[in-house]
Amino acid sequence: MTTRQNCGGEAPAPKPEFFTRSYLLLCGGVGGSKLADGLARILPSGRLHVVVNTGDDFTHLGLRICPDLDTVAYMMAGLVSRERGWGREDESWSAMDALCSLGGPDWFQLGDRDLALHVLRSHWLRQGATLSEAMARVASGLGLKHVPQPMSDQAAPTEIETGQGLLPFQEYFVRQACRPVATKVHYGAADSAVAASPALSKALNDPDLAGVIIAPSNPILSIGPMLALAELRAFLNQGRVPAVAVSPFIGQAVVKGPAAKIQAELGLAPGDSGLCSLYAGWLSGLIVHADAVTPAPTGLPVPLRACNTLMLNAADRERVAREALDFLESLS
Amino acid sequence: MTTRQNCGGEAPAPKPEFFTRSYLLLCGGVGGSKLADGLARILPSGRLHVVVNTGDDFTHLGLRICPDLDTVAYMMAGLVSRERGWGREDESWSAMDALCSLGGPDWFQLGDRDLALHVLRSHWLRQGATLSEAMARVASGLGLKHVPQPMSDQAAPTEIETGQGLLPFQEYFVRQACRPVATKVHYGAADSAVAASPALSKALNDPDLAGVIIAPSNPILSIGPMLALAELRAFLNQGRVPAVAVSPFIGQAVVKGPAAKIQAELGLAPGDSGLCSLYAGWLSGLIVHADAVTPAPTGLPVPLRACNTLMLNAADRERVAREALDFLESLS
Repeated sequence: MTTRQNCGGEAPAPKPEFFTRSYLLLCGGVGGSKLADGLARILPSGRLHVVVNTGDDFTHLGLRICPDLDTVAYMMAGLVSRERGWGREDESWSAMDALCSLGGPDWFQLGDRDLALHVLRSHWLRQGATLSEAMARVASGLGLKHVPQPMSDQAAPTEIETGQGLLPFQEYFVRQACRPVATKVHYGAADSAVAASPALSKALNDPDLAGVIIAPSNPILSIGPMLALAELRAFLNQGRVPAVAVSPFIGQAVVKGPAAKIQAELGLAPGDSGLCSLYAGWLSGLIVHADAVTPAPTGLPVPLRACNTLMLNAADRERVAREALDFLESLS
Repeated sequence: MTTRQNCGGEAPAPKPEFFTRSYLLLCGGVGGSKLADGLARILPSGRLHVVVNTGDDFTHLGLRICPDLDTVAYMMAGLVSRERGWGREDESWSAMDALCSLGGPDWFQLGDRDLALHVLRSHWLRQGATLSEAMARVASGLGLKHVPQPMSDQAAPTEIETGQGLLPFQEYFVRQACRPVATKVHYGAADSAVAASPALSKALNDPDLAGVIIAPSNPILSIGPMLALAELRAFLNQGRVPAVAVSPFIGQAVVKGPAAKIQAELGLAPGDSGLCSLYAGWLSGLIVHADAVTPAPTGLPVPLRACNTLMLNAADRERVAREALDFLESLS
């Protein structure tokens, strides 16, 4: 497949069509949130469906915690911690200190402001709100023009099969820092009883939908849970609109997280090659990383566009988002 | 009745008997917590049963909040806010700021460190712990030698009948700042299904019990809910051990709170006179306030001891506690 390289150059300017067409972004946490923000900066309200992985969600201290949704929300609100990539920049840790003093668990960090969101959302959920409704309220509170929405309103936890047995996601991801060797990943969303959220269903049925964008999130742990949803998988396989992914890989590594490690453990090819096998059958094109040091990968089975996918600031996020929209356009 | 005045002088030194006898303190929040701390400074572990009003407890944002228990715990841990009288001195309010930004309720203040306690205790309760068990864990976390224990492990909410109808306690007390005129107070503990907590039952059956001390808490709102418990009322009426109260009144006013206002609204005599009518039938003696400006009240139906009951610091708290123990001793 050919690679159009746009490395280091200006990204294409937004085209007027972007504002009458709709796009579906499927994304996870840290990496994905950056592209979500880039797209949100370009596309008007109602033209971007931001659908987020909830396979990481868990209940901790009686609080429903949605790490990916919150990272996306904080990023789009300009609140995310630059250093951590998750949680809030303007954060304090008094509650966590007190919690630990009182004998509470210390392995999952809860900032004071972040804790308030968990408390309030858990309260809304107990009152009967769906997660989608709760996220709409969170987005409103944060002043967002696009609402990050869950892939499903039902619990669909990801679990990791390891030498230590089946681990709940956060047990594997945070408590054990992804150290256990994964032998298999179980997606809660693979259960046929788990339905797509209203936002995801709406996106899939949106007559203006011009394309699907897969964020540079962990293909197995962040995108995989969404792909396990029958409704989404069927839509992608049908190919009504093109679907492009922005790769999280830079060479065979990623900026953050265990994507390379888990891909190897599950016997997949490293880097973009493994990614293409995971997205095989429906991926229309892949945006790969290239810069002065790292050449774009070659020999991949889909059309490529190469650019610097590192998103270090808002300008980068907007630039990569424009690449994705333009690439989709070129594949339509 | 005679008044022994000990105004301004030194309180009696602790006697050795204090350390082989047990005492039951019945207390509410701010005022009561000071006497709890004073007694806790004098009496060894196991010799002081601290039983606290839970009529103020409520569920807020899905969190079980126990204002009086927490005030007593924070006071005994040396953590209570001097200015507020409740919550922690070393407190920050980031979560509350975030909560309000997200559209959460702003009428009940939750400090960051305090919030951690509510989250953790609510979690323990949902896991099946009793409130007594949860408070034992809180006390352990705070390094307390005496555990502030609830009057009951069952919910026994106080409700205030007003011109606006029946108000939940915190709605009346915090949200409406006690402005509505009270016409009647309903005690949840008056329900015969509400049992005394294990700690209260243990105290009432303690063969070493030498006396009951009623803290200088609001007689109607803080002590009343405990007196509504049939087991406690029967014990007091039986008169096996003397029961003395430390009055919260200074003249006809109180240091903090609506005791005078609500006593008037319910048609009781003002100040200590009204207090005596509320505690009539079982009160053995009353410690009343006297200082250079405010004379001790007279014409009350129980033996009095007068002293400066203002507890502005730890020395004051210990002094008033010693008065109470000595007064009990003199009435035995």
